[in-house]
Parts: sequence; C-alpha cells; structure tokens
Amino acid sequence: MPDTIKYLLDESRLPRTWYNIQADLPVPLPPVLHPGTKKPIGPDDLAPLFPMALIAQEVSLEREIEIPGPVREIYRQWRPSPLFRARRLEKALQTPARIYYKWEGVSPAGSHKPNTAVPQAFYNREAGIRRIATETGAGQWGSSLAFAGALFGIDVTVFMVRVSYNQKPYRRALMETWGARCIASPSNETDSGRAILAQRADHPGSLGIAISEAVEVAAKSDETKYALGSVLNHVLMHQTVIGVEAIEQFEMANDYPDIVVGCTGGGSNFAGIAFPFIGAQLRGGKKVKVIAVEPAACPSLTRGKYAYDFGDTSHLTPLVKMHTLGSTFTPPGFHAGGLRYHGMAPLVSHVQELGLIESKAYHQTTCFAAGLQFARTEGILPAPEANHAVRGAIDEAIRCREEGVSRSILFNLCGHGHFDMQAYMDYNAGLLTDQSYSPEELALALSGLPSVS
Amino acid sequence: MPDTIKYLLDESRLPRTWYNIQADLPVPLPPVLHPGTKKPIGPDDLAPLFPMALIAQEVSLEREIEIPGPVREIYRQWRPSPLFRARRLEKALQTPARIYYKWEGVSPAGSHKPNTAVPQAFYNREAGIRRIATETGAGQWGSSLAFAGALFGIDVTVFMVRVSYNQKPYRRALMETWGARCIASPSNETDSGRAILAQRADHPGSLGIAISEAVEVAAKSDETKYALGSVLNHVLMHQTVIGVEAIEQFEMANDYPDIVVGCTGGGSNFAGIAFPFIGAQLRGGKKVKVIAVEPAACPSLTRGKYAYDFGDTSHLTPLVKMHTLGSTFTPPGFHAGGLRYHGMAPLVSHVQELGLIESKAYHQTTCFAAGLQFARTEGILPAPEANHAVRGAIDEAIRCREEGVSRSILFNLCGHGHFDMQAYMDYNAGLLTDQSYSPEELALALSGLPSVS
Repeated sequence: MPDTIKYLLDESRLPRTWYNIQADLPVPLPPVLHPGTKKPIGPDDLAPLFPMALIAQEVSLEREIEIPGPVREIYRQWRPSPLFRARRLEKALQTPARIYYKWEGVSPAGSHKPNTAVPQAFYNREAGIRRIATETGAGQWGSSLAFAGALFGIDVTVFMVRVSYNQKPYRRALMETWGARCIASPSNETDSGRAILAQRADHPGSLGIAISEAVEVAAKSDETKYALGSVLNHVLMHQTVIGVEAIEQFEMANDYPDIVVGCTGGGSNFAGIAFPFIGAQLRGGKKVKVIAVEPAACPSLTRGKYAYDFGDTSHLTPLVKMHTLGSTFTPPGFHAGGLRYHGMAPLVSHVQELGLIESKAYHQTTCFAAGLQFARTEGILPAPEANHAVRGAIDEAIRCREEGVSRSILFNLCGHGHFDMQAYMDYNAGLLTDQSYSPEELALALSGLPSVS
Repeated sequence: MPDTIKYLLDESRLPRTWYNIQADLPVPLPPVLHPGTKKPIGPDDLAPLFPMALIAQEVSLEREIEIPGPVREIYRQWRPSPLFRARRLEKALQTPARIYYKWEGVSPAGSHKPNTAVPQAFYNREAGIRRIATETGAGQWGSSLAFAGALFGIDVTVFMVRVSYNQKPYRRALMETWGARCIASPSNETDSGRAILAQRADHPGSLGIAISEAVEVAAKSDETKYALGSVLNHVLMHQTVIGVEAIEQFEMANDYPDIVVGCTGGGSNFAGIAFPFIGAQLRGGKKVKVIAVEPAACPSLTRGKYAYDFGDTSHLTPLVKMHTLGSTFTPPGFHAGGLRYHGMAPLVSHVQELGLIESKAYHQTTCFAAGLQFARTEGILPAPEANHAVRGAIDEAIRCREEGVSRSILFNLCGHGHFDMQAYMDYNAGLLTDQSYSPEELALALSGLPSVS
C-alpha cells in the first residue's frame, strides 16, 4: 500500500448545499431567550447584530441550505479540501486502525474558519453592510474574517483576547495585512472593556469579554454588524461543508468511519466534520462513535453545567442553553487560544444531551506530544487546537492496537500551527506546562448563572 | 467569468520525469573546475559530498530523468500543485492581461524547496547515508530538508545565516519540531566559521559562509553528506516538476504563457518554472519572454560578473562559471533572506548568456507593496522572496494595460510568508526601507575572483 493516500474530489463535486442538523434532530433545540423577559426571542431581536439572511439560517429547519454562487466561487480556491489516509502515522503507531484526516489548513487563512467567514461577509455585503466587528481568540477567526472582508470590500474590526494579542503578534500582522483593524481586548474603546479594566487593569481577556466589546460596537452603530466565528447554529452549518465532502471522500475510499474526532472550543470545526455523519445516522445510516476533544483547562462539555447562560461576559447577548463554565469564567492562558471559551455551541451541547456524541478533555502537553508525532510522520504541523483532535485520534488508534481491532478513525485537522511556533518552541524546550483553572473560580462563575424557570 | 479559476491536475498526471535542460542547450554548460588544478573535475571529486546518484544527475545530458516511486509517493501529498488564474488581481489592476500563478506554498514546508529536499533525502538514504549537513538563508530550505529528513530517518544539521536565525526564530522552531539541529552561522563548530568570527565577532553571516560550514562538516566526516537547496544542476532539475505540471495545466486552460516570471536567489524556483518552457522553445515551440527578478540589494544577474567563482566564502567548493558578486560579498540584511546569495546557478547564468532570459532587479519596499496587493485580492500572503515575482508580474500586467494588449503572464508563487510576518509588520508600520550594498564592497569582492585562463 502506498505511503500517501489522498482523496481529492474534483471541484465539480464541491458541495452545493450546507447540511442543517436541526432538520434531523429527534428533539428540537431549546429556544434562545431574551435576557429580560426570559421569553423566546424573535428575528427582530437579532436584527441589530446580523443581516436577516443569517438570522433565517439560524432558525431554519430545512435540511439542505443552498451555498450561494459567489461563496462557492471563493470556496473553490481551496475546496474541496483533501482527505488523507495517515499511513505513516499508522506505521509509527503500529496500529491496525485506518486513520484518516480532513485537512482544513489549505485555506488562505490556514484553518476551517474561512468556511463561515466568507458566507458571513457575503450575506452582510448583500444587505449593504460595510463594517463588521468581531472578536478572536488565537486569531484564526479574526484573520479569516479579515481575509473575507478584503474580498468583499468590508471594513473589519477585531477585538483580540489580550493574552493572545501579546502571544501572537504575527496573527495580528496577518489581519492588518488583509486590511483589518485589530484591538487588544479588554480595550478602552467600549463600555464593556472599560468596566473590566477598571476592575483589573492587566486583565488577560477572554473570548466572553471580546464578544461583549464587539457586540457593543455593533449594537451602538447602524452601520456596523457583528459576526461570530463559532457557537451559533448558522456558523456550525457553514462548517458542514467539511463533513459533506468527507462523506463523498469516504465513498472514494470504499470505507466509512467507525469513529469521528474533532476538537471543541466553541464547537464549529467539530460540528463541521461530525454533524453530516450524525445526520446520516439519525436518518438510518451507520452508527458512528463521535468524540469531542476539549482542553482540560477549559472543559465546558465535560465539566460545565447544561444551562441557560449568556454568550458573553458583560451580558449583552441573549440567553442560550449550553454546556457552560459560567460567563465570567476566565480560563488560564494556555496555547490553544481558539478553545478558550466558557460555553459550548447549543447544537453541540444538545447532541451530547441526546447521547449522540461523547466528550473527553486533555491537558496541553500530551496534545503537543501528539502534534509533534504527527508532524514528524505526516509532515504537517498542526495548530495547538488541532493537536487535541490528533491526540484523541491517536489514543483511539492505540486502543485498536491493544484490542487487535482495525477501526476506521476520521479526525478533523482544522488548521496549521504556523502562527503558534512560540508554543512549539516552549514545548521543544521542555517549558510548556499543563494549566488548570481554580475550582473556586469555576464554582463562583457557575453560581452566577442566570435563573431561568 | 468566475472569480476563482483553478487548474488542478488529477494525481494520475503527477509528472513521472524531471526535465533536464542540459539535453536541449545549443551550447553546453561550461565545466566545473578543480580550484587547484583549474581542470574539469570528475565524479570522484564530488563523492565526499554527494551520493553518486545525484552526481550522475548533475552531469547527465538525458532530457528526461525518472522520478523514483518513493519520491512521487511523497510529492503526491501536495502535488500536482494548483495553477490559478488571478482574476481578482487582474480586476484590481484593470489589466487586459491574463495572469496565472503556480502555487508552491501548498507543500508542508510552505515553499517549492521540498521538491528537491525529498529526492535528495531519498538518494542519500538509498546510499546508506544517515546524516546530512546543509545551510539555509531564510529557512525555507533548511525546514524543507528537516521535513524530508524526518520522513526518511536522516539526521539533519542546518547552518542558518545568523541574521535570519535572529530574525526568524520560528523558522528555527519549525526545523527543530521536525527533528533537525539548527546552528547560527558563522558558528564556532567549524574552522570556516571560527575564521570568520575571528575577523568580526558579530558577523551577520551569508549563504556563502553557511555553505562553507556545511561543506566542511560533510568533507570531514565519512558518515555525513552535504545537500544544497539551489544553484546545482540536479537541484534545478528537481524543481522542473513545477513547470512540467504548468505546461499541462496551460493545456487545460487552453492558453500558453507569453511571459514567465520567477524570483531568483540561487535560481532554483525560477528554473523550476522556466526551464520546461525554455526547453519547449528550444525544441521549436513558441517563444516565451522569461524574466528573472532579483533583489536590487544582491543583484548577481543584473550587476554581477559572468566568471568562474567559488560557491562559498571559505573556498571549499569547486569553481563554477556563473554571474557572481564575488564569493566574499556580504549582502545587506534585507528580508528576502532566500535571495541573499552572491552567485547565480550556472544553468540560469548560462541561459542568460545565451539570450534565453532577461533579468530585472527591484528594491524590497516595492516588492512588499505588490505582495500586499496580492494578499488583499487573491487572499494568499506571499513570502518576501515571492513578492519579487509578484512585482515583476504586476509590472508586466500594467504594461499590458498601458499598451492595450492582452498577454498571458505566468509567475511562480514559490512560498507563503507565514514565517516572515515581522517583515510585513515593519512594512505595515512604514518601517521597511530599501537597502543597498556598498559599491566599494562589491568592487572589492569582484577583485578577488579567482583567475582562470
């Protein structure tokens, strides 16, 4: 068997539709609530933040939603993305498992994030919007929206979590090269940011705070909308282009996954690869074991509470039902900045409650060890976030070896680590340590959950 | 016409052979000379440095040389690389030109360099070699050989030009992540390095010095061979996989280039895209205008002398006839570190002497302006080296607009700039300046050329 096995779809097979798991759910998703009335919100409540086309996608129950032509045009620059069989990794692990990975680092921004940045920029431009504010953690999302903004002529302002802003100046430079403005969060540019800084001038920031700042900017301006890189239903749906392609590629491979693995921060890359397989199962297809891998230092799915909570720290967003560590929870500054979010996408939380997925938490050093082994066998350097999925997949492959069973394992390699080299330097030098949150802080953050009858 | 036009060859059309331009040259390449006897060297003279298979390729006159199966296996991870039509750039330039670019940044190391790193590692392993020493400028080559070494189980030691070693710690981290050892050059590990440091303790280094160090290590050890990332005939030939694919992709596009542009440091990526087109022309095909673009701060093709010279600073290599600024010339520390070499590949120099190519020099700020325009239209962030080719192509496209003529322009986008963000930060902040060598230093370096009757 050859060393490199690549399943590449012809571009005529670029998906024409995204997959909406809401159409197949046996129990519908709990509604989004207004924080004042605690009643379900309507489209008008979201209109200050999003163009109507995206609000419609957020609540749609249609199974397939057409990908607009101009979005497919841009997708075609790097999509369909390749599916690889990791033969060299399999040999190194001496496993009978068949390991496959979907490689999303081929996008210009280097991750899966452009899959939703491009349609979000498109729908905003269709609605005549010229300015978008957003937040970013490690910068994967902010740079992807900067890229999409450059293509559609939209000004992009990015509030970047301060710890990442300082750790990753080159991610910031990338956003600026694409023409976006990048601000360390918490900042002095918003009431939310100023309130946080008044409490703690050296606050490291969090995704929850950066969301507050971006939402505030959008809510206060008629000309500016807001965009979110994960968590929301429409964002997860845009990412399903990954899994829809993977299903076709497994047909080429004459195989089908027994296990699907993705890393989870807000949940979008995980949903992107997993939901089309879960949907097939819900419609009578083969049962697949689906594993969400999250950081042990920010374990919303494994240690959070399934409850209504705010999406941001300053409580400007509606209430959504999700696995949450509490909206004031500030995770430690570990290197997978894209996974440092207090909550989990409502759809991912819901499918876990329905027993359709499992979740698992790992500390960062074991994830970097997996990433290094992957880089030295498969040649690709994964992002710290992606290393969580690599770890999860390798552990399943080791289990196959121990049990003497050949299973088919698919994981999403959601991005490259080219802007995360400081983390690899620290790891190579033995300086990287595991990090934990304080149990007291978690208890405090959870005690502040809003009461919803 | 759609915005994204991508010409993607099915992997069954991955080239089976490299193209050797020596078979088609109307005048043979001047011989390589022994520095002592000034007589042509034989294969045995090179045997301490290279495995015999590569020495045979260096002097072969066969037109097509088979790519070994295990090399094609690894190529298939990212090859055939895509050819894009730059529609959004064309629109921004309002040019009637048809601009195409071959995108080599899709390799795991992010440039064209693995095209030769992989076969070099392969032939060394076939010869039983377990250790390779090499040099690197910006780190594109060193990281590519580190990648190839990891795949073939070869220990790689990289002497990295000190100015780049300091400017680009993350390139170094990448090499280390793939398992290579990376040393700042000039170093205390070799006689060559110690001699340079004795003259100037803070010497910024140069490719010529780093080559001396790596050659010395290889020459002194029976177990270690040497590898070069450019300049030599076999290296340029491995890169022709780029142009061989491009010819097929132009058939798909129903077009053929009028102009081919590449940037030149040692000359390998330029030769890779240009030689197959020049060869077709030499065999009676269409005449193509071929432009080599080099940095004005290290202008070997436009300002160097065509003469026999050493490939390295400490004069450990044989003498080759090439365009040279003198082997002791130390170019200023501009950001396109991959182009900071005193000489030009003998084959590229030779085809310029034969009138088959033109050359052109640009300062770095105008190249970064071109790179920024490319990033904001096409979405891809080029390496500083590649920005020279982008500049050259854009200027030809502007000329088409001014002349009202639609020409077909192909350029090689040889790598991404993910490890060069400091340069973009400086450029975005207005801190990047053009740099020049001192005319006195150039005159001094040229006065030291060895005399060959």
